[in-house]
Amino acid sequence: MGPPPAPDVERLFVLLSDPTRRGVVEELGSGPRRAGELATALGTSPSSMSRHLRALLDAGVVTDERPAEDARARIFHLRPGSMAAVQAWLDQIQAQWDEQLASFRRHLEGSGR
Amino acid sequence: MGPPPAPDVERLFVLLSDPTRRGVVEELGSGPRRAGELATALGTSPSSMSRHLRALLDAGVVTDERPAEDARARIFHLRPGSMAAVQAWLDQIQAQWDEQLASFRRHLEGSGR
Repeated sequence: MGPPPAPDVERLFVLLSDPTRRGVVEELGSGPRRAGELATALGTSPSSMSRHLRALLDAGVVTDERPAEDARARIFHLRPGSMAAVQAWLDQIQAQWDEQLASFRRHLEGSGR
Repeated sequence: MGPPPAPDVERLFVLLSDPTRRGVVEELGSGPRRAGELATALGTSPSSMSRHLRALLDAGVVTDERPAEDARARIFHLRPGSMAAVQAWLDQIQAQWDEQLASFRRHLEGSGR
């Protein structure tokens, strides 16, 4: 079994609408972290952090590994490219917007101004 | 009174976690629309669309105007730059990620590989 596919835009926006889950993504952007470190950094209980990490794992936003030197530890990583659907959505809005401006410019030029 | 300030990242992610509101932003990316056109395009009732547009207006994501030639009509526009906070948030995660990779590369080079 490979990793889950990169999350779609719907799932990402729902996940990222929660400030703690956004905080996890920000923390993991700076480097891998253990669940306990994330709970401390974000001021949440271990059980609440555990639920948030499960949601992010299920969606394919983060991955986890158990390092060979300490099988009890579990290290969480941000998955490369997992934010791609949000970026693609923004790029699409921006492209439509740019096209609107270009069309407006053509309209002004066509009317001889 | 000027327009409200551009919405912050928290408010944007909450607003955009709803598929109808995301659909409004996509539609308005292509050009200004009336509320009725948006309701039809997105398959929602007029009253539901009215609530979504109110939330997007309050947050400063969209603006409305009443055209001089028809004072009863109300035209909605996407506000330029209203998605800036989401883009800035993604850019920050990407910059942290790039720094992680650069640091890893320096580590490999420092260890003589």
